[in-house]
Amino acid sequence: MTIPTPSRDDRFSFGLWTVGWQGVDVFGGAVRPPLDPGEAIRKLSELGAYGITFHDDDVVPFGSSAAERDRLLGVVRDALAETGLVVPMLTTNLFSHPVFRDGGFTNNDRDVRRFALRKTAEQIDLAAELGATTFVAWGGREGAESGASKDVRSALDRYREAFDVLGAYVVEQGYDMRFALEPKPNEPRGDILLPTIGHALAFIAELERPELVGVNPEVGHEEMAGLNFAHGIAQALWAGKLYHVDLNGQTGPRFDQDLRFGAGNVRGAFWTVDVLETYGYDGPRHFDFKPPRTEDMDGVWASAAGCMTNYLVLREKTQAFRADPEVQEALAAARLDQLAQPTLAEGETLAQLRQESFDPDEAGRRGMAFERLDQLALEYLYGVR
Amino acid sequence: MTIPTPSRDDRFSFGLWTVGWQGVDVFGGAVRPPLDPGEAIRKLSELGAYGITFHDDDVVPFGSSAAERDRLLGVVRDALAETGLVVPMLTTNLFSHPVFRDGGFTNNDRDVRRFALRKTAEQIDLAAELGATTFVAWGGREGAESGASKDVRSALDRYREAFDVLGAYVVEQGYDMRFALEPKPNEPRGDILLPTIGHALAFIAELERPELVGVNPEVGHEEMAGLNFAHGIAQALWAGKLYHVDLNGQTGPRFDQDLRFGAGNVRGAFWTVDVLETYGYDGPRHFDFKPPRTEDMDGVWASAAGCMTNYLVLREKTQAFRADPEVQEALAAARLDQLAQPTLAEGETLAQLRQESFDPDEAGRRGMAFERLDQLALEYLYGVR
Amino acid sequence: MTIPTPSRDDRFSFGLWTVGWQGVDVFGGAVRPPLDPGEAIRKLSELGAYGITFHDDDVVPFGSSAAERDRLLGVVRDALAETGLVVPMLTTNLFSHPVFRDGGFTNNDRDVRRFALRKTAEQIDLAAELGATTFVAWGGREGAESGASKDVRSALDRYREAFDVLGAYVVEQGYDMRFALEPKPNEPRGDILLPTIGHALAFIAELERPELVGVNPEVGHEEMAGLNFAHGIAQALWAGKLYHVDLNGQTGPRFDQDLRFGAGNVRGAFWTVDVLETYGYDGPRHFDFKPPRTEDMDGVWASAAGCMTNYLVLREKTQAFRADPEVQEALAAARLDQLAQPTLAEGETLAQLRQESFDPDEAGRRGMAFERLDQLALEYLYGVR
Amino acid sequence: MTIPTPSRDDRFSFGLWTVGWQGVDVFGGAVRPPLDPGEAIRKLSELGAYGITFHDDDVVPFGSSAAERDRLLGVVRDALAETGLVVPMLTTNLFSHPVFRDGGFTNNDRDVRRFALRKTAEQIDLAAELGATTFVAWGGREGAESGASKDVRSALDRYREAFDVLGAYVVEQGYDMRFALEPKPNEPRGDILLPTIGHALAFIAELERPELVGVNPEVGHEEMAGLNFAHGIAQALWAGKLYHVDLNGQTGPRFDQDLRFGAGNVRGAFWTVDVLETYGYDGPRHFDFKPPRTEDMDGVWASAAGCMTNYLVLREKTQAFRADPEVQEALAAARLDQLAQPTLAEGETLAQLRQESFDPDEAGRRGMAFERLDQLALEYLYGVR
Repeated sequence: MTIPTPSRDDRFSFGLWTVGWQGVDVFGGAVRPPLDPGEAIRKLSELGAYGITFHDDDVVPFGSSAAERDRLLGVVRDALAETGLVVPMLTTNLFSHPVFRDGGFTNNDRDVRRFALRKTAEQIDLAAELGATTFVAWGGREGAESGASKDVRSALDRYREAFDVLGAYVVEQGYDMRFALEPKPNEPRGDILLPTIGHALAFIAELERPELVGVNPEVGHEEMAGLNFAHGIAQALWAGKLYHVDLNGQTGPRFDQDLRFGAGNVRGAFWTVDVLETYGYDGPRHFDFKPPRTEDMDGVWASAAGCMTNYLVLREKTQAFRADPEVQEALAAARLDQLAQPTLAEGETLAQLRQESFDPDEAGRRGMAFERLDQLALEYLYGVR
Repeated sequence: MTIPTPSRDDRFSFGLWTVGWQGVDVFGGAVRPPLDPGEAIRKLSELGAYGITFHDDDVVPFGSSAAERDRLLGVVRDALAETGLVVPMLTTNLFSHPVFRDGGFTNNDRDVRRFALRKTAEQIDLAAELGATTFVAWGGREGAESGASKDVRSALDRYREAFDVLGAYVVEQGYDMRFALEPKPNEPRGDILLPTIGHALAFIAELERPELVGVNPEVGHEEMAGLNFAHGIAQALWAGKLYHVDLNGQTGPRFDQDLRFGAGNVRGAFWTVDVLETYGYDGPRHFDFKPPRTEDMDGVWASAAGCMTNYLVLREKTQAFRADPEVQEALAAARLDQLAQPTLAEGETLAQLRQESFDPDEAGRRGMAFERLDQLALEYLYGVR
Repeated sequence: MTIPTPSRDDRFSFGLWTVGWQGVDVFGGAVRPPLDPGEAIRKLSELGAYGITFHDDDVVPFGSSAAERDRLLGVVRDALAETGLVVPMLTTNLFSHPVFRDGGFTNNDRDVRRFALRKTAEQIDLAAELGATTFVAWGGREGAESGASKDVRSALDRYREAFDVLGAYVVEQGYDMRFALEPKPNEPRGDILLPTIGHALAFIAELERPELVGVNPEVGHEEMAGLNFAHGIAQALWAGKLYHVDLNGQTGPRFDQDLRFGAGNVRGAFWTVDVLETYGYDGPRHFDFKPPRTEDMDGVWASAAGCMTNYLVLREKTQAFRADPEVQEALAAARLDQLAQPTLAEGETLAQLRQESFDPDEAGRRGMAFERLDQLALEYLYGVR
Repeated sequence: MTIPTPSRDDRFSFGLWTVGWQGVDVFGGAVRPPLDPGEAIRKLSELGAYGITFHDDDVVPFGSSAAERDRLLGVVRDALAETGLVVPMLTTNLFSHPVFRDGGFTNNDRDVRRFALRKTAEQIDLAAELGATTFVAWGGREGAESGASKDVRSALDRYREAFDVLGAYVVEQGYDMRFALEPKPNEPRGDILLPTIGHALAFIAELERPELVGVNPEVGHEEMAGLNFAHGIAQALWAGKLYHVDLNGQTGPRFDQDLRFGAGNVRGAFWTVDVLETYGYDGPRHFDFKPPRTEDMDGVWASAAGCMTNYLVLREKTQAFRADPEVQEALAAARLDQLAQPTLAEGETLAQLRQESFDPDEAGRRGMAFERLDQLALEYLYGVR
């Protein structure tokens, strides 16, 4: 296997905030100069991406004048026109400005919540104009450090209200747009509302227009809670709700590392690609990572390129794994075919089933043959098959 | 404040498997003799419990004859009659026998899934007979250690099929019974399906009879994923789905500790009781803990009594906290009242709201006053107010 | 028990960077204005602190002129003189400026390592001048995100070289000063060298002047690795190496929360105070926390005051616990007295001991009576005893 | 690259308790029959191992008569003679029998501690007789669930006493044997003493005969605390203390998974092998894993074989990585050569160094080129280079 090269057909997209991250963290300031969005778009295009995404404030600093906004968005439009890159998704920043210290849609302050809705609506309009069909909502500051400061019922009422209002808005405007909620368990808040894929899916079921809202899970966010990302997106796909995905890397429960895709939990990345490629996900492969603070701009681009390379490498591996007759035989030995079959026969009732005889002790001696199957997968991952 | 004494009105219940745990773990054998269910019931009654719960195999060892089953259930019935204790919930063991090495309802082997349904149906019948109105389902072995061994879509199809079949069954039988799914992220499987409250709630929304199925979250299970338990049950209550609750203690992501309630994450326990008591939960306060392996039977009963004492202590504390005028003033300073208010006025549209002017920089200077509020809570917890 | 008030005899100290934190994190900018060090010192004095500590850059921004340095340090000196507060500890910032992107003492770049030594030496001189007897070293950027980027043997050689050079320096200068290493497992680096108390203690044993170097453990740093902080400082005290301590709060493995002391793992805080007060720690009780970004300056001071209140509350509780005859009886029942006794008698040999007879099955039936003991402790923590 | 085959020169060893694990865990009983040690030895020999290891109770059930002991050890001796396998290490079980519910060497009960010493001495004699030169000590039950139950200073005194006594014993007997402490953070105890490699190394420095005692770290144990295993063993090797190693797999902080080597944290496994092969470790490559409970004996052997295969695959990869000129160039670009150089020149003093001028702002613009280097490593791991 040679190292594959990305093309636009692979539908790789990047947040402008990823390659544009200057390295500010809790313990230190910027290590890289601001990155011009036009330059970012051209460079990502060269590297093989097909799309870019951004928060309002990534391109237009908070508080810019209308003229400045036009000028800055013009830079983006020009670069898009020049490169042919698309904007499959946009999102709003409701977490950086001090006014959002307690969040946006669930801020205790009603006027801040109102402002958050306005700010989002403005970005939705831009999204529609730029042809984005997905609007991501990461409620990074919707949460709490302490128990009494947030009445969770009220907060969820307000959260629902926000998506009901925004849902009504896109319908009224006739926008071809769906929302994708991005769960995260914590950081920057002690505990964030809708902490996992599951909580977000459950919340969506309570909305006025659930069909307009899905999830945008991020590898690292689920792994920060020790959860299996492939299982999580599989459940989202099962529910028809994987509207977008954020690919990156993480090493288990700790701060949000945002490593390049493929460079964190390697085994998890293999199964993530397997699920995305075989369970029918058809959205962009979107990278939401942070090039480490050790890097200069060369390192930033190496990191961005690595995301795409690793995805393609894993895609080839998982496809070869699934196609291998020895693997298919091992899957059968592990009775995956039986799992795909209903437990009851067509029309059979529980009463009928209860007549059946069965020897649990004998059945209990059967092995599942999972280790052999997993070793085959690992040998594909290691590239020795 | 003196140390409170539990009474039946407090509705404390215990799993027979808790005080009956003999201490077998991966690294060592039994340290305590088997505990007769009758003795357990009498002792729990003396200590102040109002109810007991059990898995089929807790009372009737797997594979017992019908006669032996009758005899053993007779012991339970006699002790219940003698003490007046009730059985608010029952559950099935689909995880101990070797036949369940790959789970019950999502086992790759179809015949095992069929057997799991039969075993559950039998215990549902007993539950109905004993007056239990909640049937808990912990799918502890429904999961995987490796990616290829479980097609998650198929597994969720089978999981749904199981609850659709069982739901139909209780309706047919006219049982007054609801199911409560118990999520857990891992252990004994590498990753368990429906790993958190959120995933379980999301799954329920896909069932044929979602109204029959809620959740039975366990403190330690959510905390093993680093999640905030009080937030989790608050979301479940918001969705009308907290049908039962398992109270115990844990110290963050690690093995399932099953400490007595109140003895793990103390701050979390305070807010757990606050949510249970103020958000309208009306089920039993059920303890699912394991008296540590260091203890003999005296230690077991001390541990069980501690669960109830700690709940009562925290209930008094949270009630006093909520009643304190200084706290109410601090809640207002933190604008909890505003959070309870809709973001849009009655009939207001987003278009109207967008006309509003707002100075984010000025609003960004406002503090939320959460630290003072939380310090008040902590002083109640510490018992210095 | 009433809410206690701190006094200087309690020896509470604060880092100027704690109350001075403006709230910059990975996801958002400053929410609070810069805090004048003089004002910080006066306010902390009013609240009951006895000392303050700081990194060079906290008071004198990196790159300031000598004149500006003098002026700014003059502000500190004046406030110290005015309030009578002391400076028990100083430390250097080797993590904020871009030059330290790969750390200071273990930076791959030799010239950066040289600069780090110079910067530290300059701050050591100031520390000596201000009467500080402890110099803390937190190597927050000494680490790696990826395997090949850091040869750990070489890095530890360089780390040792740094403390050998600095140790020689304080000896030459005749400074009455000891170093205290502050371990942390990760954040801001993917993995930090000397990740826990244990690793730091082990490292110290390899130094030229181990007697000059101890540890400065931080509650949250150990708890981010799921470790028991009280156990960790107990081992440090056992080795005679607890030279300083950083008190704050955390909720298990996740980002570094830096909650106020007493407000994270409450049970852990109780035992932390118990160990500090009963195992002979005689240094300052130093708070290294971050007032949450939700707060304005009133919240900052409420948070700072809370740290001290909570320490005092827990000190009273642990003292009362230890003094209670019922507790003493429970400790004896748990055989703590036997643990304090050598296993072999004076002069006894293993050969002699091997003649002894012992019935393990009988001894295996003994319970340890730990649950009763721990419930007593918890009742002290809850303030119901 | 083809799939490599293990040979005796690779020095792979297995604990008999690994392939012999019957699957008992907290939630279920045995799923596999007892495995005859002779059969285990023959099968491991066939698969390519060179050695086996065991706890006393693995071969001779606790409480067996002397005659039974002789017979059972005879089975082992015969199989060793037949296969030519060696016994590089032995260890004692101080955690399974109820008498060890509070540990062995640090049990609160003095008579239990005395018994633990006798039991260990007996196994040391056997180890010497079988030619083992390493004696592993995993203190799995040395710990606590609650604060007051263990005075950590006393417990460490007793722990030290045990190794001082045992050290004196092997010296007296003239045994060629060293001890290797195996750290673990928790499970089965809430918190275990000497929780990480660092804590164990620090403890060793306090012993009477530190030269006799090193560490036996286990991949999963460090990763349960979120620590970087390769960094940990690198520090142990730096201190000359890596006397033995336990290889297996884990997926971050959660229960002790004991996956086969190479199948947990894949990226971590790559760097683990790199450190073992390049930092001069010369002991056995010992696997301490548990074939999942889903498996029958075929699965057990597939799992055991996988451990060796994966080690060999990773060894080839890391060697090829280190040999690649492009990698060497990338290492130089990342200034690993400078890290290997002392920071001060021969004879240079800090005073001299302080005269140097340096422009931190200019140096702060340099990138470290780590992402490119790590991507090269990852491409070796993925087998695409």
